Amino acid sequence: MRPHDPARIAKLLNPQSVAVIGASDDPSRIGGRPISYMLGQGYQGRIFPVNPNRTTVQGLTAYPSVAALPETPDIAIVIVPASAALDSVTALAERGCAAAILFTAGFAETGPEGAREQQKLVDAAHKHGMRLIGPNSLGLINPCNHFYGTFATGCELAFPKAGGVAIISQSGAYGAHLMAVSTANDIGLSAVILTGNEADLTVGDMLQMVVEDPATKVIMLYSEGIKESAGLLAGLDAARRARKPVLMMKVGRSAIGSAAAQSHTASIAGDDRVTDAVLKEFGVVRVQTTEQMLDIARLATRGIYPAHNTLGVITVSGGAGVIISDAADAVGLPMPEMPLDAQERLLKLLPFAAPRNPVDVTAQFLNEMSLISTFTDALIAEGKYTSILGFFTYTGGVASVAPRLREQLKITRSKHPDCIFALSLMASREQIREYENDGFAVFEDPSRAVVAIEAMGQFGRAFAKAPALPAPKLAPISLPTHNPSEAQAKQLLAQAGIASAPEEVCTTIEAAVTAAQKIGFPVVMKIVSPDILHKSEIGGVLLDIHHEADVREGFALLMQRGKTAAPQARLEGVLVAKQLKGGVECILGIHQDPVFGPVAMFGLGGIFVEILQDVVLHRCPFGPDVAEEMIRSIKGSPLLLGARGRPVADIKALSEMLSQLSAFAVAAGPRLQSIDLNPVLAMPQGQGAYAVDAVIEVTQG
Amino acid sequence: MRPHDPARIAKLLNPQSVAVIGASDDPSRIGGRPISYMLGQGYQGRIFPVNPNRTTVQGLTAYPSVAALPETPDIAIVIVPASAALDSVTALAERGCAAAILFTAGFAETGPEGAREQQKLVDAAHKHGMRLIGPNSLGLINPCNHFYGTFATGCELAFPKAGGVAIISQSGAYGAHLMAVSTANDIGLSAVILTGNEADLTVGDMLQMVVEDPATKVIMLYSEGIKESAGLLAGLDAARRARKPVLMMKVGRSAIGSAAAQSHTASIAGDDRVTDAVLKEFGVVRVQTTEQMLDIARLATRGIYPAHNTLGVITVSGGAGVIISDAADAVGLPMPEMPLDAQERLLKLLPFAAPRNPVDVTAQFLNEMSLISTFTDALIAEGKYTSILGFFTYTGGVASVAPRLREQLKITRSKHPDCIFALSLMASREQIREYENDGFAVFEDPSRAVVAIEAMGQFGRAFAKAPALPAPKLAPISLPTHNPSEAQAKQLLAQAGIASAPEEVCTTIEAAVTAAQKIGFPVVMKIVSPDILHKSEIGGVLLDIHHEADVREGFALLMQRGKTAAPQARLEGVLVAKQLKGGVECILGIHQDPVFGPVAMFGLGGIFVEILQDVVLHRCPFGPDVAEEMIRSIKGSPLLLGARGRPVADIKALSEMLSQLSAFAVAAGPRLQSIDLNPVLAMPQGQGAYAVDAVIEVTQG
Repeated sequence: MRPHDPARIAKLLNPQSVAVIGASDDPSRIGGRPISYMLGQGYQGRIFPVNPNRTTVQGLTAYPSVAALPETPDIAIVIVPASAALDSVTALAERGCAAAILFTAGFAETGPEGAREQQKLVDAAHKHGMRLIGPNSLGLINPCNHFYGTFATGCELAFPKAGGVAIISQSGAYGAHLMAVSTANDIGLSAVILTGNEADLTVGDMLQMVVEDPATKVIMLYSEGIKESAGLLAGLDAARRARKPVLMMKVGRSAIGSAAAQSHTASIAGDDRVTDAVLKEFGVVRVQTTEQMLDIARLATRGIYPAHNTLGVITVSGGAGVIISDAADAVGLPMPEMPLDAQERLLKLLPFAAPRNPVDVTAQFLNEMSLISTFTDALIAEGKYTSILGFFTYTGGVASVAPRLREQLKITRSKHPDCIFALSLMASREQIREYENDGFAVFEDPSRAVVAIEAMGQFGRAFAKAPALPAPKLAPISLPTHNPSEAQAKQLLAQAGIASAPEEVCTTIEAAVTAAQKIGFPVVMKIVSPDILHKSEIGGVLLDIHHEADVREGFALLMQRGKTAAPQARLEGVLVAKQLKGGVECILGIHQDPVFGPVAMFGLGGIFVEILQDVVLHRCPFGPDVAEEMIRSIKGSPLLLGARGRPVADIKALSEMLSQLSAFAVAAGPRLQSIDLNPVLAMPQGQGAYAVDAVIEVTQG
Repeated sequence: MRPHDPARIAKLLNPQSVAVIGASDDPSRIGGRPISYMLGQGYQGRIFPVNPNRTTVQGLTAYPSVAALPETPDIAIVIVPASAALDSVTALAERGCAAAILFTAGFAETGPEGAREQQKLVDAAHKHGMRLIGPNSLGLINPCNHFYGTFATGCELAFPKAGGVAIISQSGAYGAHLMAVSTANDIGLSAVILTGNEADLTVGDMLQMVVEDPATKVIMLYSEGIKESAGLLAGLDAARRARKPVLMMKVGRSAIGSAAAQSHTASIAGDDRVTDAVLKEFGVVRVQTTEQMLDIARLATRGIYPAHNTLGVITVSGGAGVIISDAADAVGLPMPEMPLDAQERLLKLLPFAAPRNPVDVTAQFLNEMSLISTFTDALIAEGKYTSILGFFTYTGGVASVAPRLREQLKITRSKHPDCIFALSLMASREQIREYENDGFAVFEDPSRAVVAIEAMGQFGRAFAKAPALPAPKLAPISLPTHNPSEAQAKQLLAQAGIASAPEEVCTTIEAAVTAAQKIGFPVVMKIVSPDILHKSEIGGVLLDIHHEADVREGFALLMQRGKTAAPQARLEGVLVAKQLKGGVECILGIHQDPVFGPVAMFGLGGIFVEILQDVVLHRCPFGPDVAEEMIRSIKGSPLLLGARGRPVADIKALSEMLSQLSAFAVAAGPRLQSIDLNPVLAMPQGQGAYAVDAVIEVTQG
């Protein structure tokens, strides 16, 4: 069990004192850089170099050991060789240090032996409640208080500017790159945290820390793989509640998932898709490129997150207006038309204008600069757009135009402080800073501005979202020791209220005939065996049975096929079930994710899942409202919603089944490996949803 | 008929002399800017200002009229008011001028009256073979010979640098923006052509002109709507044959297409999708953003277009390597693994390296700079990658590293001149120019580099593509005066070898019974009427008819339904057809595009077309090889290709049917409005493909 101690962890970001174990007098060496950076940038806390061979380090008093320090430092940086790391960590922990940042490499990244040594570090630290970043970490920076617990050379190019964006990265080199490009793009930072091997503190822990940090407004995460879910989920939940946007670059989208499991569900629910589902759940914007990360973070620092985001565009080029419209359509950012009376009024002011939205003032604004504020005011006041994008190309930087344009824009900006306001223009670095200081986010390319603006709405929707309905709670479900048969699986699921088609397991031909007559023709017949998981592959399913004679013949045929296909299989009989007509085939499934636990999947049957991989995933458990959102989110959902004259399916019953299944997965505990309900028939509205087949796989035990 | 005179048109780009009608002495006025720009930039041709009120203009001799000019100018710029434009154009045409650029506005863009006046300009010009750009054009620039036939103020910010990229834009403001951002991004230009109203010369004509221009290597097009196809198609074909990459921004992707037609085909084949299909046919890369346009054009000027493009990556950050891999996967750029023996060799040189591809030299390269050339050489020589991307983040710009890095990179570059070589790094403008001069294309964001590199392969494949098989040629097909019935439609299509299921039209119950017995049960029965187009909507189709009694009952039922649904409809009987089982349902269709003529569509039946809009389009006619490519390109194609144990469909028969249909569309002439073969059943391999239903719509005549 990991200690829970946010106060200790918080000292990493705001230490009053720091010991540097393995400090060097040479500012170019790894052991010298943190001290050199802190002295150069003006860190106000106390720095205690520890070096047994020197009395001073870079002008500071040096101490021979941790024990010899004049006080217990809040935190420490450990730069000693791997062989000496355990001693340092033990000494720091015993001294009562809150946390240590381990630059030292040579642990888990080198193999199992290193992993064992790494665990010793953690054990030594936790014995006294000390927490660790790393080992193999490039460090931690707080540009606001000039704490530079890092040896990143990127600092030498340009030290980061203090601001509201925190960077948390599992990759040291990429995190340092992100710091450098943020700085080059005038994005101020509140923290840069490079988590290294994550022996103790993880990305999730650091996320929780920066959410608590008042300087941090926006958080950029880079992850190559989530190792533990609890900290991340807690951090994401806290960030959403604190209205702090989280952007994440989670790489490895293209990696082929782990070995395909027996059920379709498992093979489709690749690891990366689970992460995607979790990020979506918490309103995290997942970015694909570094540029997107910077664009969105920069706009997000303005702190405006409309839940119902709409875009109004003012442009001096009709062509650019169309490009912007296309870009907005591509990302789903609505650009409603201006009210007709407002359009008429604008046309009276400028007959050549395009007043619909985009609003095109044409080159005429060069002669009549007040058109800019008049038209933009109209966009906000009458079009009620929450976001405005102005396209001014090179006129925004031309000396004869720029100051007058800026003046006009400032008038509008000051009247509407709650509006997102982005500009697309070409100008010098200095001019762009002026626009930015006036309250505008400047993008050279308007399409990038559109992507960033759309993201603000994603954050807004996540922050404004009503709490989901509670997930159903079920009493613990006792799983059998081996994989259950289809009939057993259905009985288990019935405990969670998951309905199957009327059916009966029959061990004799006569019983099958009686069952078929009771259920009513047509029926389907299926072989029942705990040893045959995919019945259709061995011809173990017969459809469209209309007559008694066919029941008799079918029974014999199925038993024979069962024996032929799997001579060792236990044949428990034949299932006779009502053949349901007129339903839409769906697939519901559960898959155990190694990080996030049971994950539910929903998709449409057949082609949709097999070829189009049109599925949606969600962590278990969840309520029927979340289930319905999932169902409506897939591309094929029109099939269920009455497209082209089809009957509307019983979405309510289907949502409840999916929600109950998610509760079942939790109640069944970790021995549950997977569930595959394929197909589930979603009948027309009011007629329910039925699992036609059910496969449950368990860990033997 | 428009004149065909490439020599005259070419004078627009390289005029030896230019008359400026409506010349102004004031260099800030529209009539003064072209002269001021040309004088300032050093245009070597003769400039003849025409202004009845002055004897000199900006120091040049001015002439009172076109007639008074001392010689016939190659071309002219017309800047007079709209009311005087026709006189100027007439005078220039009579004088023998080859072409004129009309800045004058107030024509077709103002309405039908303006359009009529505009046509008079064209008629006056064509009477003497003169060609026109505009009216309402922002002009034409050739930065190579400093001809500035423009009043774009963007020039005042920075005059374009001479280079190999031509810009052709229907939007003046956006074209000028593109010129400005190209210049700001160090992209040299060979032409900037802003086509205005396109009364005479179109984007397609200008495309043909720059393809012939030896200075132009790469072409950027911006279009808001193609007005005529012949010029564009000729230009695209010429560009491909000349190996000149064309990039196109065609806006209006999101616009809702023209009114939905009766057939599914027509409603799906929106105008923009047709353009998309045509661009794809010619290997044009369609860009979504201005940044993409610049990125790809810049890399394209290097002139390396591999037909089988593969990417090798050398990086100093593992994280960036993964980001690049994800980006390459997303755009379909292959990144094969390095050969195992090469990997082993590299690991011997640097045990921490990741040698697979991406090849990660880690921060160790800072100590051992030769790793860069050694590892990159190995990528090219042993991995055989056609494209290399190096990620060096801020180290590429740090003074202590950059010169040594540059030296190493130059060594490799000089050994492999035929390799595309891009770098992702942060550096000063000056440093980036140095890398660029060394033969590298520099991108700050590696994901943008990946997109640009992938585009080089698209060009390469288009340039290397073997000529397609000839399209089938059919004798002219005579269409009926009204929409044919299903049976008539199938007879017509049979002329093109398009097979239907065995079937017979029956006018009596007895005939239907006889036909069903001849064809063999089960059969389908359908009402036959030229007045009922969508039979299934009125219950006019009966499936699964197994017995004679059902044929009798069905006949009566269909006739009754036909009468009830459309009392005025001519009922010609009932079609009895073989019910085909085991085929895959496809849809083949034809739609008349107002610009590109008949366009063929292929998609899978049902959900795929209706809900997923998974269709592919192609101009008619085309051969079976193109048809097969179309069929294989849709997302649902695995259904036809044997996915998950399905039988492989008769792709050959299906391709031939699609190709024949395309030839039919051409042979049927412009009275053909649409064809909808829905469904076509693609039977298992060797068993053919059959149109089960056929709807042909014609213009009445």
